[in-house]
Parts: sequence; structure tokens; C-alpha cells
Amino acid sequence: MRVSRFLLSTVRETPAEAETVSHQLMLRAGMIRKLAAGIYSWLPLGLRVLRKVEKIVREEMNRAGAQEVLMPAVQPAELWQESGRWDQYGPELLRLTDRHKRDFCFGPTHEEVITDLIRREIKSYRQLPANFYQIQMKFRDEIRPRFGVMRAREFLMKDAYSFHASEASLGETYQVMHATYSRIFQRVGLEFRPVAADTGAIGGSHSHEFHVLADSGEDAIAICSKCEYAANVEMAQALPPLGKRPAPGQPMQTADTPGQHTIEQVSRFLKIDPKQTVKTLLVKGTGGVIALVLRGDHELNEIKVAKLPQVAKPLMFVTPGEVELAAGCEPGSIGPVGLKITVIADESAVRLADFVCGANVNGKHLVNVNWGRDAAEPVVADLRKVVEGDPCPDSGKGECGGTLSIRRGIEVGHIFQLGTKYSEAMQATVLDEAGQSVIMPMGCYGIGVSRVVAAAIEQNHDDNGILWPDAIAPFQIALVPIGYGKSEKVRETMDKLYGELVHAGFDVLLDDRDERPGVIFADMDLIGIPHRIVIGDKGLAKGVAEYKGRRDKQPRELPLGDVIGMLHQTIKS
Amino acid sequence: MRVSRFLLSTVRETPAEAETVSHQLMLRAGMIRKLAAGIYSWLPLGLRVLRKVEKIVREEMNRAGAQEVLMPAVQPAELWQESGRWDQYGPELLRLTDRHKRDFCFGPTHEEVITDLIRREIKSYRQLPANFYQIQMKFRDEIRPRFGVMRAREFLMKDAYSFHASEASLGETYQVMHATYSRIFQRVGLEFRPVAADTGAIGGSHSHEFHVLADSGEDAIAICSKCEYAANVEMAQALPPLGKRPAPGQPMQTADTPGQHTIEQVSRFLKIDPKQTVKTLLVKGTGGVIALVLRGDHELNEIKVAKLPQVAKPLMFVTPGEVELAAGCEPGSIGPVGLKITVIADESAVRLADFVCGANVNGKHLVNVNWGRDAAEPVVADLRKVVEGDPCPDSGKGECGGTLSIRRGIEVGHIFQLGTKYSEAMQATVLDEAGQSVIMPMGCYGIGVSRVVAAAIEQNHDDNGILWPDAIAPFQIALVPIGYGKSEKVRETMDKLYGELVHAGFDVLLDDRDERPGVIFADMDLIGIPHRIVIGDKGLAKGVAEYKGRRDKQPRELPLGDVIGMLHQTIKS
Repeated sequence: MRVSRFLLSTVRETPAEAETVSHQLMLRAGMIRKLAAGIYSWLPLGLRVLRKVEKIVREEMNRAGAQEVLMPAVQPAELWQESGRWDQYGPELLRLTDRHKRDFCFGPTHEEVITDLIRREIKSYRQLPANFYQIQMKFRDEIRPRFGVMRAREFLMKDAYSFHASEASLGETYQVMHATYSRIFQRVGLEFRPVAADTGAIGGSHSHEFHVLADSGEDAIAICSKCEYAANVEMAQALPPLGKRPAPGQPMQTADTPGQHTIEQVSRFLKIDPKQTVKTLLVKGTGGVIALVLRGDHELNEIKVAKLPQVAKPLMFVTPGEVELAAGCEPGSIGPVGLKITVIADESAVRLADFVCGANVNGKHLVNVNWGRDAAEPVVADLRKVVEGDPCPDSGKGECGGTLSIRRGIEVGHIFQLGTKYSEAMQATVLDEAGQSVIMPMGCYGIGVSRVVAAAIEQNHDDNGILWPDAIAPFQIALVPIGYGKSEKVRETMDKLYGELVHAGFDVLLDDRDERPGVIFADMDLIGIPHRIVIGDKGLAKGVAEYKGRRDKQPRELPLGDVIGMLHQTIKS
Repeated sequence: MRVSRFLLSTVRETPAEAETVSHQLMLRAGMIRKLAAGIYSWLPLGLRVLRKVEKIVREEMNRAGAQEVLMPAVQPAELWQESGRWDQYGPELLRLTDRHKRDFCFGPTHEEVITDLIRREIKSYRQLPANFYQIQMKFRDEIRPRFGVMRAREFLMKDAYSFHASEASLGETYQVMHATYSRIFQRVGLEFRPVAADTGAIGGSHSHEFHVLADSGEDAIAICSKCEYAANVEMAQALPPLGKRPAPGQPMQTADTPGQHTIEQVSRFLKIDPKQTVKTLLVKGTGGVIALVLRGDHELNEIKVAKLPQVAKPLMFVTPGEVELAAGCEPGSIGPVGLKITVIADESAVRLADFVCGANVNGKHLVNVNWGRDAAEPVVADLRKVVEGDPCPDSGKGECGGTLSIRRGIEVGHIFQLGTKYSEAMQATVLDEAGQSVIMPMGCYGIGVSRVVAAAIEQNHDDNGILWPDAIAPFQIALVPIGYGKSEKVRETMDKLYGELVHAGFDVLLDDRDERPGVIFADMDLIGIPHRIVIGDKGLAKGVAEYKGRRDKQPRELPLGDVIGMLHQTIKS
């Protein structure tokens, strides 16, 4: 492609409305333009990247035996009523009415449509397993769309749905999809992690998210230093420190702590490490108020707590009045000593000896408290979020001995074992080998294709612009002639090289504008072309061209005749 | 692909709801399934065809220098209000409201969005001409969607929009698009015609429709037997028969025609050829009622008449009461003799001598009427639809001497010179060479991608199913083993051939089901695979396979070793 025939719409200024780097750079590079809140047009430059991601996704889904289909964007309300989601989904579902006053929605997802399709088309276990995918624009009416295409309302999604005659078969396809997603993000060229995830509202029993690692990511992920373990911080199992609980040392004493409520305040006041304190929270239990005890430096993990059998659903904290009734004090002074209610303590808190806790008296704390001696031995459970340095709960392949670090991630893919949530509601059955009608277990597998583009930028950029991986760069090679309009020799050499590179199958952008080299270099850096070849009269006199990889600090010269061979060796595709 | 891993959902019975052959065959072959009125899911088989058409369209648009973009499906009302179409478009525009109560529509077309985009991005004539296209699902809320994907509500469209600094540049791009569309439909493998068309409601000055010829087409097209001339019957210029008007023969006489009103009735009653009669219709003119005279066997062309300067806009026929006032008789008895109002006669009617017409007296006609002698010489104009056998008005390349035949066509593409309709309303300007702000002339160019699939079937089918052209067949080759599950030799030979053909780049469907050959043959014929190879133990004993092209009457044997070479030679791609 020649720039003279291409809509290169770069912008120097950082657009004020863009908060994230990827949003800023996608606007500045001329990849996207906003049409309305959360609704974007893809300009030629951006679409080239989007299509490359799409192509990799399609190739790998096909390779995994999934069959491509294309379902409508506009879906009738009846199917959503059948699954129960017409009422459940809330205002993110863009509802609409056709000219005959029938209710439809612009599909944010297609479980209902595919389940309806497959219950009609597939009758026998012999046609299973089967996995169907599509790559399509979806709409989710986010209340606050932001970050450009990262959290847009209209977005390009690959969604896949698998159907099975047994749970075992679902498990197999789930593993195939897990491997396929890993291959996809490897091919795209991103650092990523499959992360064990909570299944949340979609339902189902088993799920992984695929996260692109980037400091700007919205999600915190716990990653092992040694093994492949990765989990959402909310989901990661928190292990206590190695070793046993030390024996009690000092006798328990009461300390005055007037006006000191938080762990930070109490620790500073008593000059003690927060790790040597515990905090106690009261929540509603299934049989009255219960106390939760955590080490002072740890945070409650509400998702874990909500799953405890002793805890009432949904998780509810008690009011200060109820605290007063149960513990006889304000919320900042509760402690496990002498409490008459069920006490559940996190494993790390249970390992402490000689710790500090509230005295259940306003303005007082207890020091040198010990479980079993001063406070009754509590129920033990995992109540907390993991922190940097926690032991790895390991990936299930044996104890790895690594420790966890907390990274930020951007969710770009999600695989679920849905089970029979939809197939049961919609009576999607097949006949099994014995001729019995069985409900098909289902899996679903999504990739936010447009989001991958933004995530790739969040992970790969510098002050000058985007750093595209070769596989999804809009163009792989930028050809920059110095004096294209002035030097016949430069023009002829560049045109010949351009023709040869295109013929060899490379995606090449020849900047044939009448612009200063500095302007061209800035544009090519901004739009992130990974490989740049510069040719000018000076170099031609010596028979050399100049090459610079986008991540290189300095350009280097090489003989003109070596350019094509070097690019073949350098560019992975 | 192996059938065992593919959703082959063929149906024997013709679905009752399908009126057209393509709709019936797309349902029977398992290409599409209805989700709601005019809204279809594409199954894997159908999508393969759709994607092949899409690929050809994309390649040819790129080759023509057009740049691919992707604009949102959901468009804000403000832009449509700016162009004036929010109020004009009517109920076919699917309007919707987001959670913040803002008005949007599901785009049926994208003139407003692209014009808004380009007025922001392109500032100088140096960036022009530029042509942008996208391939995307559109929605048009048809009041009566039918014929499957032929007239669906949600449909896949390629729409392109070009921008220019001058009308001359628009004309050039228009010619490029004309040639591009011809290449696209040639590559798809269809018999088609570019047809001069009325621009209708979209506005603009110059337009061609691309029609796939098929007996079931909704549109009548006049095509020359000798040259490339083709036009919508409504648009085709109607020439009079060659030669001059004969001299008057007999004197005019009055004939009693009691109860005879129509041309058919009068001709039969008077035993005269309808071609020797004229019919007279009264319409409202700009200065009172005017009479239109046509030869009895011809039909009024309302589009041509509406454009006459003497005729009031919009075209209105007068009431029987007004006929009585103007002609003194009922509508079935009007004639040009003695009329006191303006008479406009079609050229063919003006060539008649000794003709029959109404006498302006109920129950009476005049015979042997002659222009200039009995009736005043009328204003002459082209008022009629062309008919089979009319002289070709020629394609503008000199008189061709051919005659017109009337064929049926399915409109699959449409190119327009829009002029400044949108760019003026939305103030899309650039600076020209002199630094003056000028409004950009625009062109727009559409292809109904999903419609092409249905049109291809309307043109290419027989009693057994679809006859796909090689270029868009879901699979090019069907491999049919006789006894795949029983004969190891057959299985091995087939698997090897399958691998080699796939490796050679062919799209191959291996039917590895445990079905009778008759069932497999019927399925492969129904889904229209163009080339079929059968291998069984009998043939293997002789070292031969059986080949049958989908359009061949009989299969033929060929040595196993020649199969791949033969397929390479036979399949155009």
C-alpha cells in the first residue's frame, strides 16, 4: 500500500477524552473514530489489525474442529423469555421493537439462538460433540462505556458454543478450547495467562479467563513464580505461611487504645507490625451473627466468604447496632476473645501467637492473645485475598514451591463449562446410545476480538506510539524513501523493493508522501510498524539501506541486496 | 472436511413456507434456518458460500483501490436528522432507543456515517479521490420479508462510498466500479447484466443496477440481441417500428361497440389486431387535463410519463367524472379525434394509419382514423414500456441493429453517482487547488452479498438441487466412498486421496457416513457440489474411480492416478 492511496489519519495531540494509552494511541494513529458513546468506526489502519486478529482466531477455531456459523444480530424476545434472561438481563440488553410491535434485542451473546438452532438440527449422540462459532458485532448497552474499544457498546466478538452427549465430552472439548485459546494468543504475539475464574452470573461449573498482562489492566491476577498457576485474586486459594503456630509467649494483657479503630491506627499506636494483629468482622450467618477473623494486613475476599455454608446468602455485613448487641462495642474494637458467636478465622490468622485484637470494649485492645488459651479455637477457612509473596497453591501438578506475585490483566477471552443451564431451560435433548432422551451439556467460549487489539497496545507501546507484534501489525514493513518526489534513483529503487516485498507476501506501506523524514518516522513509529527500511541518495551511493526494528534504539545499515533476505529472517508470521 | 464432523442438515421435503426455488433449496440443503421473519442463521454449509462471495468482493474492491473500513451497525439519530432522512425513511428504518433514551437506528445503509467520518478526516483535494467500503450486516425492516435471504430484514451488504474533488473524478471512479462489479460477478460465475436504472429515491444523476438473470427474477430487463445494451423495462427507450407512417387508406367511420371497453374487447368485437388500435388515457397536466395515446398492445410507462414537462407531479390519473367533463364519455371510449385538450402520443401510436380508437361517445369507436386528417397531429413522446422485439435503442456505441428481448433479473448490485446530495446537506467540503472550499461529489456502490447466494441458486439449479459455480461452491469436490466403514481398501484409498486434494488446495467434502450410496448421491446433488468422485471395491479392482460433474448426465470412469490431474484441469478458480 502506498500512503498516497491510504487514509493515514494520524494526530499529534493526545485526545482529551481518552483515558487509557490504547484509546489515546488508537485515536492518534487513526485506527478508530468515535461515532457515539461506546460506538466506533474502524478506519482502514485499525481494520487491518482487527482482521488479522480475526483471521488467527478463525484459523485456530477451524483447526480445533469448530464449525463457523453466522447467527443474526437481531434476536426475538421469545427465546430470551424461554431461557429466563429477558427479565434477568437488565438494561445492558438493548431491546427494540420492530414495525409490527414485536420485541427483539440486539444480541450481546447467543446462547439462546444457538441452543434453539441445535435442538432442532441435532437429534442423536452420533452427531456430537459439535462446536459452533461465529465472529460478529455484538451490542451491550454499558451504562458507562469507556477506554475506546476496550469497553465499547458495539464490539467484535468470537463466540463459540459446544454441545455434548456427556459431561466427560464437555470436559474434553473444554481442554481443546483451553489449548486453542493459548495458541491463538501465542500467535497474536501477546504475553497472557489462562486464569481460573469465578463463573459469576453466566452460571456453570468450570471457567477460565484469558488475560493479556498489562500494567493498566483492570483485573488483579495472582501468578506463580515457578509453575503455570494463575488465578483471579478473588479466586486464588490463600495458603497460610509455612510452619506451625508458635507456642504462646506472654500472658494476655489489656491495652488502652483511645480513638484507635483501624488496624493502621492500632498498629502505629501500639508500635506493632500489622501482621501481628487480627481484625474481626461481623456478618449475618444462617443461624445468627458470625464473626470473621483475618490477619490485620489481609483483605477479606467476599467471593470466598459468600460461599461458606455458615454464611447467609447474599453476604451481608451487620449494622453498628447489631455489632453492639453481639460484641458489646463499636465495630473497631471487636475481637475473638470471649465472643459468644461462631468465629471463623482465616488460616493465616489461626497461625498467629501473641497477637493483638479488639477487646470487645470501646477504646481497648488485647495484646499477647493466643488461640486455645485466651480465645476459643475458631473454625478455620480461607477468607482472604492472596497477596504478593503468598505460597503458590500450585497448578494441581504437585507442590511447586513458588510464590505468588500479583499482576494486572485485561480479560480478552473466557471459556465456560455451562453444563445444562440453557439446554435444560430450552429442552435441548438428543437420544443417547440407549435411545434415551438426554439434555446436552454445553460449553461456551468467547474472545473479544476488538478488545484484543486494544489489549495488545496496552501491553506493547512506548512514548512514540504502538509496538505491534509482527502477526497483527497493520503493515509489517514501512518503506521510507528520502526524497521520493525528487530523486529518480530513490524512487526507482523504492518502487522495485516495494514490488518485490509485496510479491514475497509481506504487508508493506510505502510512504510516498512529500514530507520531511522526521514527520514520516514519527508517523511510522506512532502507527507501530515493526520494521522500517529507509533509502536515500546518500545510502544508495554506498549501496546500502538503513533498517530499524520498532523496538531497536538505533538503525543499522545493510547492503541493499540483503534487505529482502534479512526481512524474511526477521519477521515471524 | 469429513461429513462426520460437519453439520450436514439436509431435508427431503420441500418446506411449505418457501415460495422460491432458492429459498426452498437453501432450507433443504441446510444452508440457512429462519430465526424470525426475514432473519436467518447461516449454518456452516451456507456460510461457506457466503464467505466465498464475500472474499471475491473484497479482493476485487481492494484491487480497484477501495479501502476497507467498518462502521457501526448502530447509528445515532442526529446524523440522519442532519441529512433529513430520519423523517423521510419511514418504518423500514429500525429505530431504537438506548438506556439513556437517546435515539439510534440499526443502519440499513451508511451514507450519513461515512459522510460524517470523511468530512472530519479529509481536508484537501490531494487526498481525493478516495473510495471506502465495508462488508456488514444491515437491517431493513421490510413490511413483508420473503423469499428467504433474497428479501430478508437482516442481510449482508457490501457498501462503498467514494469522495471526489470534481464530478469528472466521480465519473472516473464510477467507471472503475462498473468494471469492478462486472469482474466480481464474472468471478462468482453468474450470467448477469449491468442495467441502466432509474435512480429512484436515493437521488443522484447516474446509476446502474447489476442483475443476475433468472426466470424467477422480480425485475423485467430489456436486453439487446446484438450489443451490450440492457435496461430496466421502465427505463428502456422505446423506439417506433422502422419505416414511416403509411398514407391514409380508408375514410374514417363510426362503429357501434356496445359494452366493449378494453382493447381486448374492442379488438375481438371488431376483429382487428390490437396493434392497429390506440388507447387514450387522461392524466392531470400542469395546465389542465391532458390525453396520452398509446398503441393498443403497449403499456403505459409511468416513470417516463412522470418526467414529461407537461405532466403534473406526481403523476395522477383523472377520475371518471373528470373524464366525462374532458371527453364527454366513459374512460373506455376516449379517443384523440376532436379532443380539445393537449394530446401526447407515443411514437409507435403516431406511426399508425387507419387505426381504431374511442369515439368520445359511450358505446362507439372510430375505425380507419388517421393522424393529421381525422385527429390533430399530437405531441410525440416516448410513453411506453418496451416489449419483446422492439428495436435496440443501442448502447451508445452506434446503431447496433439488434432487437430487444425481455428477461427476468435479480438485482444484486447497484452503483450510483450521488452527486452532492449528502455532502451538501452535511457540509462535507475540501479545499481545492485554489484553496477554495468545495463540496465533495460522492458515489455509492452496493452489493447484496447474501442476496448473491440466493440469486446464484435461482440461476443454477435442477430438480435434484443446487448447481454451484466452482468459485462459490461450499465444497468443490465430493468424495463418496462405497463402503467406507466396511472396506479397508476403500477407506485407505479415500483417506489418501482426501489428504492429497486438501493439500493441493481444494475444498473437499469426504462423506464418511455409514449411508447407502443413493442417500449420499442425493445429498451431494442437493447441496450442489460441482465435482463428485466415487470409489468402491469394484472400481479399485480395476484401478479406476468414477467422476461425475454435477451438470453431467452420466458418470465416467478414469484411472485412479489421473483423478487429481483431471480435477486440476476441470476446476476453475
